[in-house]
Amino acid sequence: MKRRMLVIGIGAGNPEYITVQAINALNRASVLFIPNKGDDKSDLHRLRRDICERFIEGSDYRLVDFDVPERSKAGAYSADVADWRAAVQSTYERLLSDEIGEDEIGAFLVWGDPSLYDGTMGILDAIRSSGKFDLEFDVIPGISSVSALAARHKVALNRIGEPLTITTGRQVSKRLPDTGGNVVVMLDTRDAFASVTEDMDIHWGAYVGTEDEILIAGRLSEVRDEISRRIAEARDEKGWVMDTYLLSRGEDGDID
Amino acid sequence: MKRRMLVIGIGAGNPEYITVQAINALNRASVLFIPNKGDDKSDLHRLRRDICERFIEGSDYRLVDFDVPERSKAGAYSADVADWRAAVQSTYERLLSDEIGEDEIGAFLVWGDPSLYDGTMGILDAIRSSGKFDLEFDVIPGISSVSALAARHKVALNRIGEPLTITTGRQVSKRLPDTGGNVVVMLDTRDAFASVTEDMDIHWGAYVGTEDEILIAGRLSEVRDEISRRIAEARDEKGWVMDTYLLSRGEDGDID
Repeated sequence: MKRRMLVIGIGAGNPEYITVQAINALNRASVLFIPNKGDDKSDLHRLRRDICERFIEGSDYRLVDFDVPERSKAGAYSADVADWRAAVQSTYERLLSDEIGEDEIGAFLVWGDPSLYDGTMGILDAIRSSGKFDLEFDVIPGISSVSALAARHKVALNRIGEPLTITTGRQVSKRLPDTGGNVVVMLDTRDAFASVTEDMDIHWGAYVGTEDEILIAGRLSEVRDEISRRIAEARDEKGWVMDTYLLSRGEDGDID
Repeated sequence: MKRRMLVIGIGAGNPEYITVQAINALNRASVLFIPNKGDDKSDLHRLRRDICERFIEGSDYRLVDFDVPERSKAGAYSADVADWRAAVQSTYERLLSDEIGEDEIGAFLVWGDPSLYDGTMGILDAIRSSGKFDLEFDVIPGISSVSALAARHKVALNRIGEPLTITTGRQVSKRLPDTGGNVVVMLDTRDAFASVTEDMDIHWGAYVGTEDEILIAGRLSEVRDEISRRIAEARDEKGWVMDTYLLSRGEDGDID
């Protein structure tokens, strides 16, 4: 079965982070797949639908909601991820098979940038390799939560000429990357910043770019308790938190 | 003197990488500062002017060209950078003082994303700290050349759950970051990939997102000579090359 797909980065947070290229891609698509990731992320679900309504002209398209399988956290991380990816792959295969035709173009709307900690491209690659579909897809880059964080804090991600490492809470809770450069942490469900022993500068943000945005910056030793408290409050209130932060070994006076 | 500025990321390459937020910001600005970085970058200069003409409605704005000081490469890297930043700062101060009034909004158009290897925010911070201006500025994120590269190659930047390090050719020619994750190299004027001894996968791109785009992917051992040759040809033909690449320790079958 021949299938054509678009993987569209819609930016992370502010709906106006969407690019002209993404708007054109939304308008080329006949079928837009909107993931449900459980009740706690219903805000994000609504935001994806709002973006379609705001930026697609006419009504010559279909929105197809689908449930994203939940990742087990029972076993080893790599085994849980492998199982989860297999489940997502079979969900995608069902969508490609049942919800879209040969003369249509389907689209996945990806929060942020599809190239950063997002599995959509990898899963489409796996489907293509499996030979079940004659699948072509294009990718539209988006504003990542990392770029959004930096812009809202008005701070450069890297120190001049130094490397920048983007990583996960899980990695940082094991050890901080030791390239000597700055570190951005995404997908931190365990407050990994709280266990960083080196006293660094932190630029932290939750729901960055949205009306619920919270931004906190300062020395880690001085603001880490406040950040933990705000995360707990936000999780109580909204049911989910999406936060990102920059850890930097600042020259003095770097934070203002 | 009170001054208001916007630092607008216009994306790297395709003019359609521009965001709705950036278009709105362009339309709020009264004075748009367009850098000249020497004859070899005149394509980029023209592209910035084209973006203004395409996306700004009406003609109620001024474009102000300015020459960006060239960075000396004669001394130690950090001293050359410090001198260069001081020269750019005094250029910016002159623009703020002479080319814009208290009731206007000025804008710098930044190629790619202002948070990644770009000095504009840092220099505006320094100007604000100097006390010479009562300066406020906002920052609009943009699609970086890193996101553009990944989208055009249709490849994720990170391996699942692993860190990603973004760094410069200068750093990589000294040593490859050893976080175990993938590495993106920007600002490589010395073909640093040619001296990487580990045989990795490379996804390389020059002029990504433009009509002159060149994309090459493969095992470093197999494509590195071709990449060096294409860089030399492109530099001969256009006078400048802007390339970015992803180095990854791929599982087998990762490159397709």
